[in-house]
Amino acid sequence: MSDSAKYCVGIDFGGTNTKFCLLDGQSRLSGIFQLRTARSRQDIVDQMVNGVRKAMADQAVPADQVLGVGIGSPGPLDLAKGTILATPNIPGLENLPIRDLVSAGLGLPCVLENDANAAAYGEYICGAGREARDMVLLTLGTGIGSGIVIDGKVLHGSHNIGAELGHMLVEPNGEPCGCGQRGCLERYCSATYLAQRATRLIREEGREGLLAAVLGQSGCITTKDILDAAIAGDGLAREVWDRGAYFLAVACVDICRIFDPDQIVLAGGMANAGEHLLSPLRERFRGLHWSITEIMTTIEIATLGQDAGVIGAAGVAWSAFGPKQEAAR
Amino acid sequence: MSDSAKYCVGIDFGGTNTKFCLLDGQSRLSGIFQLRTARSRQDIVDQMVNGVRKAMADQAVPADQVLGVGIGSPGPLDLAKGTILATPNIPGLENLPIRDLVSAGLGLPCVLENDANAAAYGEYICGAGREARDMVLLTLGTGIGSGIVIDGKVLHGSHNIGAELGHMLVEPNGEPCGCGQRGCLERYCSATYLAQRATRLIREEGREGLLAAVLGQSGCITTKDILDAAIAGDGLAREVWDRGAYFLAVACVDICRIFDPDQIVLAGGMANAGEHLLSPLRERFRGLHWSITEIMTTIEIATLGQDAGVIGAAGVAWSAFGPKQEAAR
Repeated sequence: MSDSAKYCVGIDFGGTNTKFCLLDGQSRLSGIFQLRTARSRQDIVDQMVNGVRKAMADQAVPADQVLGVGIGSPGPLDLAKGTILATPNIPGLENLPIRDLVSAGLGLPCVLENDANAAAYGEYICGAGREARDMVLLTLGTGIGSGIVIDGKVLHGSHNIGAELGHMLVEPNGEPCGCGQRGCLERYCSATYLAQRATRLIREEGREGLLAAVLGQSGCITTKDILDAAIAGDGLAREVWDRGAYFLAVACVDICRIFDPDQIVLAGGMANAGEHLLSPLRERFRGLHWSITEIMTTIEIATLGQDAGVIGAAGVAWSAFGPKQEAAR
Repeated sequence: MSDSAKYCVGIDFGGTNTKFCLLDGQSRLSGIFQLRTARSRQDIVDQMVNGVRKAMADQAVPADQVLGVGIGSPGPLDLAKGTILATPNIPGLENLPIRDLVSAGLGLPCVLENDANAAAYGEYICGAGREARDMVLLTLGTGIGSGIVIDGKVLHGSHNIGAELGHMLVEPNGEPCGCGQRGCLERYCSATYLAQRATRLIREEGREGLLAAVLGQSGCITTKDILDAAIAGDGLAREVWDRGAYFLAVACVDICRIFDPDQIVLAGGMANAGEHLLSPLRERFRGLHWSITEIMTTIEIATLGQDAGVIGAAGVAWSAFGPKQEAAR
């Protein structure tokens, strides 16, 4: 059997769009496209089945060359049963056995994975982590998501609630997080938090400068506003940005002590800052890192952008259904 | 091939004693004994070879029933090469290719593992973690060692310097640790640190009570002194003990967010306190844990004591040399 003639299909199921792609045995991507996500249980299943058929038809791939389908979905999920337990942004999907419904519709084996893990696996097989054996992805967005890949395997935890690095305690007894803990990483360096902190310092402590002007004009501050102002030399913006980098560096040191990965990969809105994030982060990281060994782990920006999830979903299908010795990578 | 008639041999190589045992395919232990560790490179290799032969002879196990030998050793080690790079407590072992020398002496395959990981694997296959799929062991001794077993595999990291949970930052920018970081777990709740803290509070702040009396009489304070005094109601001892439990609880919450294991297992001197450690630890843990899910991870005391390492070394040999579908567990 030649794997170059075989494919897995990835589905990245999201609240707004659902994306599809093919991935061959050499991790080559083809036929990527997206649809506006349907709204009812049956329509969502039909859309996935038809989307997979379209992806295959677009690339003239017959069904006997497809090994299986991977579905990346927001959660919480029951991975063992292949069920969506609930999706905060898409009502009405409670206890939807999505894996088996799509599998039955297509006559192909399917596997379900959560979207953060799928994105991490995508970066691992095709993106920033493609040379890594062990890799940790942090997605710095509204919250902080994460995915951990150890020697090709996605870490789920015994109850599928592991790899929640956004809720590591970087400041024990610190600021309250929506999860009920205090001092979570997410509470100190997510995009949401940086904007909140800048807003608070302006409103409560009367801090002035570029960000105060932005807030006055538009009524809100975005992470991009903070970054732009920091690059322009604004004092408050630099302080808020650097504090975020410091707490992220604390988490990166912990990740090294725990996982000793080849790479920590940063994705999400804040990671768009590129060197403006990496430079202060790496400096803080060097300052916090132990001196017993040199630094062995690199910190990099993700390279696949919004496609990481759909590529990773197809990669998860390769792991599940591909020949053992020739998984996606 | 019936595994019940097959064995692996474990060697727990230590600065003081070297321990041997047999382990069969049902994780049944036999023929455990220890020797005073030899002092030269050649004598150490000979002792291991002869010790394995003695373990087999004692149990009347012929060589063709032994699948292989696992050696647990202090490090740093080069696991891929099977070499001891250095052993702080046993001089003269630099770059000793112990795995291949013992293998050649016995005519049996050998595998090398670090002692903390071997102990964790021992608890995983035969001890407190034997029902767990994912388990984290913390050894609370002079320092804090750790071992992580995920779905039967020991986590090493990409450069074999992972699973150093004693150097997680539980108080970023806190007290300096010997590793060059500040605020390491080890610096807040190892046996060494609790004794140091009590001593400092007595000497520098003039704190009085049972521990001050112990210090006056014997010139030093042990973890057991602190525990005994805490049980007797001494204020300083309770404060020091509870603070240690607090920081350990911070680490346990991080472990849950990262690994979501079935179990966190505590070993080492402080774990001898049993319920006196578990009770305040679990209370602190409940207070710090998120409210998104109930607590899924249990915290338990290790059950194998000083035998965990040798059992785990034999178990690592089962993983390496046993039939895939019938590993040690």
